[in-house]
Amino acid sequence: MTDIKSICRKAKTASSEIAKCSSAKKEEAIDRIARKLLEEKEYILENNKIDLQNARQQNKPAAFIDRLVLDDKRIESMCSGLKMVAQLPDPIGKVDGMIKRPNGLYIGKKRIPLGVIGIIYESRPNVTIDASSLCFKAGNAVVLRGGSEAINSNKALVKIFRDGLQETGISPEVIQLVENTSRAVVLEMMKERDFIDVLIPRGGKSLISAVVNNSLIPVIETGEGNCHIFIDKDADKKMAEEIVVNAKTTRPAVCNAAESLLVSADIAPKILVRIIKKLQDHNVEIRGCEKVKKYYPNCRLATEDDWYTEYLDYIIAVKVVQDIDEAIKHINKYSTHHSEVIVTNNYQNAQKFLEEIDSAAVFVNASSRFTDGAEFGMGAEIGISTQKLHARGPMGVNELTTYKYIIYGNGQIR
Amino acid sequence: MTDIKSICRKAKTASSEIAKCSSAKKEEAIDRIARKLLEEKEYILENNKIDLQNARQQNKPAAFIDRLVLDDKRIESMCSGLKMVAQLPDPIGKVDGMIKRPNGLYIGKKRIPLGVIGIIYESRPNVTIDASSLCFKAGNAVVLRGGSEAINSNKALVKIFRDGLQETGISPEVIQLVENTSRAVVLEMMKERDFIDVLIPRGGKSLISAVVNNSLIPVIETGEGNCHIFIDKDADKKMAEEIVVNAKTTRPAVCNAAESLLVSADIAPKILVRIIKKLQDHNVEIRGCEKVKKYYPNCRLATEDDWYTEYLDYIIAVKVVQDIDEAIKHINKYSTHHSEVIVTNNYQNAQKFLEEIDSAAVFVNASSRFTDGAEFGMGAEIGISTQKLHARGPMGVNELTTYKYIIYGNGQIR
Repeated sequence: MTDIKSICRKAKTASSEIAKCSSAKKEEAIDRIARKLLEEKEYILENNKIDLQNARQQNKPAAFIDRLVLDDKRIESMCSGLKMVAQLPDPIGKVDGMIKRPNGLYIGKKRIPLGVIGIIYESRPNVTIDASSLCFKAGNAVVLRGGSEAINSNKALVKIFRDGLQETGISPEVIQLVENTSRAVVLEMMKERDFIDVLIPRGGKSLISAVVNNSLIPVIETGEGNCHIFIDKDADKKMAEEIVVNAKTTRPAVCNAAESLLVSADIAPKILVRIIKKLQDHNVEIRGCEKVKKYYPNCRLATEDDWYTEYLDYIIAVKVVQDIDEAIKHINKYSTHHSEVIVTNNYQNAQKFLEEIDSAAVFVNASSRFTDGAEFGMGAEIGISTQKLHARGPMGVNELTTYKYIIYGNGQIR
Repeated sequence: MTDIKSICRKAKTASSEIAKCSSAKKEEAIDRIARKLLEEKEYILENNKIDLQNARQQNKPAAFIDRLVLDDKRIESMCSGLKMVAQLPDPIGKVDGMIKRPNGLYIGKKRIPLGVIGIIYESRPNVTIDASSLCFKAGNAVVLRGGSEAINSNKALVKIFRDGLQETGISPEVIQLVENTSRAVVLEMMKERDFIDVLIPRGGKSLISAVVNNSLIPVIETGEGNCHIFIDKDADKKMAEEIVVNAKTTRPAVCNAAESLLVSADIAPKILVRIIKKLQDHNVEIRGCEKVKKYYPNCRLATEDDWYTEYLDYIIAVKVVQDIDEAIKHINKYSTHHSEVIVTNNYQNAQKFLEEIDSAAVFVNASSRFTDGAEFGMGAEIGISTQKLHARGPMGVNELTTYKYIIYGNGQIR
C-alpha cells in the first residue's frame, strides 16, 4: 500500500538535510550516479524491457513506444546530462543586495532551495534522472510521479539514484518515487500543500491542465508553445525564409517549434509563394487565411481553431496581416506566451515588437528554436515556463530556488 | 447585472496600454489622485457613512466598524501613501544581465508588469487605494473585489481613482471594481485564468484559504504570521526582554507580532520570571508548557493548538526548549514561515539559526515587527508573502513585476 502522505512527509524531512549539503558533496553524488547508470546498464535495460513488453501487449502506437525506449545511447545521454549538471555553479547560499538601514539593521536576500518539488510526468523515463538531478543540484527534495507505462524503468532509475546518494553519505529519502500510479493517488498528491512546495507537470496539454485544475499546491506550467514568426515589411527575404524553415521543420514536435506564420501584406507578394514552396519541400501542410489563397489557391483554409493550435507536427497556419500592429494583436491573442519572432531590418518595428509582445521569449531575427536552457547559457533546464509568476521561459537550476531575508541586528526594536 | 468576464476582459485590454505608460505619466496620475482624494473628501465620507449605517443596523462589532471607518486622518494617510508610491523608482523596462552567446545572440531579461492583478479583500476601504496604486505604479491593471460591507466607500474611492487616471489621459479601465459582492461572483472571478495573471487575497485566514482552495489563477498568499522569538542560552537578558515586549505588545493584531516565545533551558531560570512579569504588565496572557509552570505555577497550560495559533491578541504561548536544535525544529514545524527571531550573543548559534530556519524573514537580535515593506526599504508593500514561489516576505513594487527574455539576433538558426 502506497501512503502518499508518508512519502511526501519523508521528502519534506529530507529536504532540510539536503538544503544544508555542501556543493562539493552534491557534485560528488551526481558524478557517482552518472557512473552507476553505466555500471547498472543491464539492470536498467531489463526493467525497461518489461515496460516495453507491456506497451506492446496493449498495442500502444510506435511513437508512444519510442518515447519509452531506453538504449545505450539514451543511457549515455542521461550520463552526460548528469555530468553537466554536476558542473553547474551551485546557486544556494548567495546573499544578494545586503543593505544597512538607518537604524543599523543589515538586511540581505539569501538564495535557498524551494524545498520539495513534485514532478508529474508522462512516458519518457529520462525525465526521472534529468529532473531529479537538476532539483537536487539546487538543494531540493523531489517527489516523482511518472506514468504507469514507465513504472519499471522509473523504479530502476530511482533505485540507482538513491543508491548513489547513499554511497555519498546523503539520505536517499531526498528522492521519492510514487509507485502507485493510480489517478486517485495523483489527486491526493496534488493536495499535499504541507509537504510539497511546488508542482511541475511535464507532459502534454491535458496533463498540464489536469494539474492546474486539481492542484492546491502552487504549479509552474511548462511547455505549451504556440510560437509565431512574423515577417515584417522590411525583412531580409533570405533570412526570413531560413528562419521560418528552421523554426518549423528541424524538430516540429518540440515546444519551441513555430506553429503560425504571419506575413506583412507589403512583403507577401515578394516572399509568400517561395516560402510556401520551401515548406512544402519539407512536407509541411499549409493552412492559410483567405489572403494566402491568392498565392496558393489549393491551400486549406485555416479556421479559428488553427490560430490557437500547437500542432507539434508538419503543419503551419499562415496569415497575411496588414502591418505590425495587426501582427502584435494577433500574437497576444492566440499565443501561449512561449516564444515569438519578428524578422525585420526596421529598427522601430524591432523595438516595438520586443516592447509589446507578451511572451516569455521575444526574438528579433533569430529562430524560436533557441528558447532552450542550454542555448540561453543555463546548462540544463527543467522546462520552459509559460506563466508569469516566479519564472518565465527556460527554467534552470537558479529558477529552482527561492530566497529568505536574513537580518543582523543589535537589539533594534520598533 | 455584473458580468465578471467582461470586467476582467476590460482589465486585460487596458493592461497592455498601461504596460507601455511612461514613468512620468504614472507619477503624474498618482499625484493627481492624491489631490482629488482631499478635494472629494465630503463625497467619500458621505458614501462611507452609508456603509457605517448598514454595519450598525446589522449590529456588527465595534472592531469591525472601526476597520470600516474613513475620517480626515485616514484619508490623509491614503494621500501620503499615494505620494510615497508616486516617488518610488519605476521598476519597469530595466534589462538585467544581457549576455552575448557564442553564436552572437544577445539575450537579456527585461522587467515587465505582471499584467492583471486581482485583489480580494475584506472590510478596510483604504486597501482600495493602497493596493491599486502600488499595482498601477508597476504597470499593472487591477480587478478589485472588496467586501460587501465597504461597497459604497469602495465605489467612491474607485470613482476618484478612475477620474484621476482619465484626467491624466490614461484609460480608467486600468482599475476595475467588482460591484457585485456575491459569493458566486468571486468564485467565477477565481476561474478567469485568461484575464487575471495573479490573485492576491488580503484578509484573514479563512479568506486566504478560500482563495487557495478555489482559485485556478496563481495565488500569492500573504499575511499569516505565527512568529517566534527564541531566547538562546547566551542572550543579552535586557535585549531579550525588550525584543519580546516590543514584538508582542506594540501592535498585537498585525502579522509581524510575536505569537510564541521559546526559551533555552539554560537561561530560563535567569530570565523567565522577569519576562512573564513584564508581559503581564502589558496585559498579556501567558500559555505555557509544563516547564513554564515551574516559574509561573498559575499559568494556563498550552495545548498543541496553541503552538499553531496566530492569536493576533494579547496572548503568548511560551515553551522552555532544551537547546537551539529543539527551537529550530519547533519553529520549522509550527510556524507559518513569516518571521522568526533569535536573541543571542553566540556567533555559532546566530549563524545556525539564519541557516536552518525556513521562514521569509529570519532575525538575529531584532524585533520581528521590522518585517514590513517600509522598514525593509521598499517604500510601500502590498502584503507579506508566506509562500515560496515568486516572492517571499514584504512585497513591494518590484515584486509586482515579472520579466521576459528579449533576444537580438542577426539571422541565427539552430
